[in-house]
Order: sequence, then C-alpha cells, then structure tokens
Amino acid sequence: MKRALILLGCPEAPSQTPMAVYAVYKLTKMGYEVTVASTPSAMKLLEVSDPEEYYIDNKIDIESCLAKLEEGSFDLLVGFVHKDAAVSYFVTFYHILNIKSLAVVFERDPDVMEDLAKDIMESTDANVVSARAYHNPTPIRVKFDHAIKDLEE
Amino acid sequence: MKRALILLGCPEAPSQTPMAVYAVYKLTKMGYEVTVASTPSAMKLLEVSDPEEYYIDNKIDIESCLAKLEEGSFDLLVGFVHKDAAVSYFVTFYHILNIKSLAVVFERDPDVMEDLAKDIMESTDANVVSARAYHNPTPIRVKFDHAIKDLEE
Repeated sequence: MKRALILLGCPEAPSQTPMAVYAVYKLTKMGYEVTVASTPSAMKLLEVSDPEEYYIDNKIDIESCLAKLEEGSFDLLVGFVHKDAAVSYFVTFYHILNIKSLAVVFERDPDVMEDLAKDIMESTDANVVSARAYHNPTPIRVKFDHAIKDLEE
Repeated sequence: MKRALILLGCPEAPSQTPMAVYAVYKLTKMGYEVTVASTPSAMKLLEVSDPEEYYIDNKIDIESCLAKLEEGSFDLLVGFVHKDAAVSYFVTFYHILNIKSLAVVFERDPDVMEDLAKDIMESTDANVVSARAYHNPTPIRVKFDHAIKDLEE
C-alpha cells in the first residue's frame, strides 16, 4: 500500500485543521495509508475535530516522526505551510525522504505567502501550491485537489 | 427528539471548527438532533472538515435560520463566541428562542475574552463558559463538557 505523510505545523490559520482532515480523506480515497505528523497543539485540534477517528487514524508527533525518518519511509509528502517553522520542517522532511512532495502554502497576507512559497521553491523541487486561504478554505482546497491529481499522473 | 442549535460566527480562531464538530458529536451522543447555523465561511470550513457528513448532518445559514426562528423551535442553544458579532447573534437567538442556553467564549486575549463574557451575562441568563483557547482546544473542551453536563441535570 502507498504511504503518505502529511505535515502540520502550529495551527495559526483557522483552515489548517479542516484542510488536514480533508487531505487525509482525499488521499485515503486515492488508496494511500495516511499518517499525520504534527505539533502537539495541531494534534489536539485534530483529536477534537475527529473524535471517533473516522477520518484520521494514524497521528504522530512531528519530532518523533523526524527522529525515525529514513529515505523512502513514505511514498508521498504533503506539508501545510503558513509559518517559517513549517518551511523548515517541510524542507528537512523533503531532503530525508527524497520522494514526490507537495507544499500547500496558505496565509492571510499575500506578501508573506509569496515569501513562504519562494523559500520552499529555492530549497526543494517540490510542487508548491499557494492560496490566500484564511477563513474560506475553498481556494486552497481546489488547488490542493488539482495538485494531488497532477502528482498522480 | 430533543433539538439543539449551535451558532457559529466568523471562524477567526483555529479551534472554532474543531470545537464545533466536537460539540455536534457530543450533543448527538446525548440524544439531540443537532443543527449548526453559521456564517458562509464557517460553513465552508465545516464542509471541508467533515467531507462525508459523518458528524454534521444539518447545516443552515445563520441569517436564514434567524428569519424563520420562533420561540421553542429548539430545546437547547449553544453559541460559540469570539467576536462582538457573535455576541449579537447569541443574544438575539437567545431572546427569540427563550430556552436553556450556553455561550462558549474563547479568545486569545484575556481582556477581550472577559469583555465578551460580560456582554453576554449582562444581556441574558445563559450559562457562560470561557477559556483562553486559541491553538489548544483542551481548556474550552473540558469547560464545554462540564457545562453541558450541568445543563442536563
């Protein structure tokens, strides 16, 4: 079975937890076994958001995940990025795993969003999608859907 | 069947959508038929957060809900409050419905949080719980659980 890893940093944006559930749902539908690696507060939000673990089964602390990560541990990396710390995590995971990767950048401020996307593009060959999604998750959801479809083809 | 209405305003706080799913889950377990009335952006986040409608079945636009609201349309009102607009909605729904009600106030800034809670207590006899929950939903989840249990007894 194909294995996907989703990275979640500090949950500053209201759309992060909903989009994380959606991404797990979507990738599971596509046949991936999905693991979510996140900071402690992002994980608590996931737990509250899916109390019966109907959508998200495999959750791991991002630091514990990193400690045992090896090249090829997963087949697909998806990182949600809306802060510098999340860029660092994504770039680190990207270079260890060496697999096809997608960074999903969302930020309220368009300049910050552009800087985050640029930082990732300068440090990796990952696919990057970005959208000004803060309250309304639709722009980032649509771009995520297209990017995931492209990665599969 | 008992009917509960959950009010969601503008989703500024990252914990609002996860807590909304949790509240629906909890009240459904307690035997309520739960409706969520929300602003358009809050509803989009709910849709992304629960793509198969496993947790949340009944969603309605907050203005449409208000337009047809009557005393006793529901048996329990729960409002999530972290902005002035949400206070206004809660107070309005409270006075039309005239049923047992709980306001769940969460804000990053403790002074703002206190002001919001005070505004509600001055305008209603609703139960009010408040917690500084922004990233970490645990404080507000625990207070919500207690308050709901108290309301049932």
